[in-house]
Amino acid sequence: MATAAVDPAAHQAALFEFLSRIGDNALILGHRVSEWCGHAPALEEDIALANTALDLIGQTQLWLGLAGEVEGKGRSADDLAYLRDGYEFRNILLVERPNGDFGKTLMRQFLFDAWHYLLLKALKGSSDQRIAEIAEKAFKEVSYHLDRSRDLVIRLGDGTAESHSRMQASLDELWAFTGEMFMSDDLDAELAEAGIIPAPQGLKPGWDQIVADTLTEATLRKPADGYMHKGGRRGVHTEHLGFVLAEMQFLQRAYPGATW
Amino acid sequence: MATAAVDPAAHQAALFEFLSRIGDNALILGHRVSEWCGHAPALEEDIALANTALDLIGQTQLWLGLAGEVEGKGRSADDLAYLRDGYEFRNILLVERPNGDFGKTLMRQFLFDAWHYLLLKALKGSSDQRIAEIAEKAFKEVSYHLDRSRDLVIRLGDGTAESHSRMQASLDELWAFTGEMFMSDDLDAELAEAGIIPAPQGLKPGWDQIVADTLTEATLRKPADGYMHKGGRRGVHTEHLGFVLAEMQFLQRAYPGATW
Repeated sequence: MATAAVDPAAHQAALFEFLSRIGDNALILGHRVSEWCGHAPALEEDIALANTALDLIGQTQLWLGLAGEVEGKGRSADDLAYLRDGYEFRNILLVERPNGDFGKTLMRQFLFDAWHYLLLKALKGSSDQRIAEIAEKAFKEVSYHLDRSRDLVIRLGDGTAESHSRMQASLDELWAFTGEMFMSDDLDAELAEAGIIPAPQGLKPGWDQIVADTLTEATLRKPADGYMHKGGRRGVHTEHLGFVLAEMQFLQRAYPGATW
Repeated sequence: MATAAVDPAAHQAALFEFLSRIGDNALILGHRVSEWCGHAPALEEDIALANTALDLIGQTQLWLGLAGEVEGKGRSADDLAYLRDGYEFRNILLVERPNGDFGKTLMRQFLFDAWHYLLLKALKGSSDQRIAEIAEKAFKEVSYHLDRSRDLVIRLGDGTAESHSRMQASLDELWAFTGEMFMSDDLDAELAEAGIIPAPQGLKPGWDQIVADTLTEATLRKPADGYMHKGGRRGVHTEHLGFVLAEMQFLQRAYPGATW
């Protein structure tokens, strides 16, 4: 990526869109993972999932905080998280998939983490200093998320016949939601050109490698690339997002402006 | 029950409480049943469940409408349904139980319908004309609900080994939530004394009879009466109600005052 300093006022619309996308991915996945709190199969896993959720919500605060700043309409990260409706959310469809069983939650996490890791690694070198700084912090956390989800995918994939078949089924179901991570539009191209973000499709070879290595170790079969779902990145979501938002936004919707 | 006309201004607090209880039962069960829309195992059942839900929501409108009138603070049925928080809801815990599978939904419906039927039958003779009129209308609908849920409990209970065991498990799980239907407090006693409502415990023998006859035909074993859950009637709910309200109230909370 280019290293020239970026005019903070430039690329405003594209930047707001990008920051909403990365922030909403962290927010919605963070909420999904938080649904496990108190329900995981072992105490250590419960705590690990809660910590993952907390990391993601913390990153959301930074990304959406910057999004509000870039937008310049006085909206805070909380405003963006709690007061937008579904069509204004920009997360990829993968992260709004229902949790399913523990294995499926971990498979979703792994597929996302491998991409998130590569994206943040590239964003550490963003020509936009504000983005580079958030990426630096988030990258450390996400490196750990990836270690953990990869390890569990391997243990459950190469585990019992039951855990193996569940992991394969999860992978088969989630696969069609992975393509959206590498899709690109004019806004991505504009920011990539300015050295602010990596071109989405450029992350694919690295992701393929991590996934292939992990699935081999997990004795899981990589599904064939077929039809890939899309829409989240431009606000067209599945029915699942509405239920997430209803629960997540209840407090601010029922008690507007409530604070601790 | 007494037949003397009631002073509409008398028993205000007790009446508001009773109307909230009967209205909230219809509202929350109606919402739960509506969750099946588009998901039932057969088209006819899908339509039947949607119709049941509609009947219950229609009854809610009447009961909560009268509750708002009795309260005299200008709150409409919609205000009560969409703008109260969990601790203000007065439904029994049975109706907020999660749907589970189709059989469990029908078992919950049957246990409730048998009681609802007897309650409405008695309320047709209420000394409060307004209540008698609503009961008259609702009784016709609920007679049909009971016919239908009883029939399905029998067919599924006396069905395959799989359906039988699921119905027995549903019955065993839901049983501890049936006791709350027959509990009574000072407000019930006040209204029963005035001939406005039947004494809750007075409905028990009739309910026992309907349930015993149905379970016998369904080849299901009636659980022993043990600990009975309670709390809903005075606003102390399980975690499930919050999720119901988050979903049910989203529109009015997110778009206050929105109308069609």
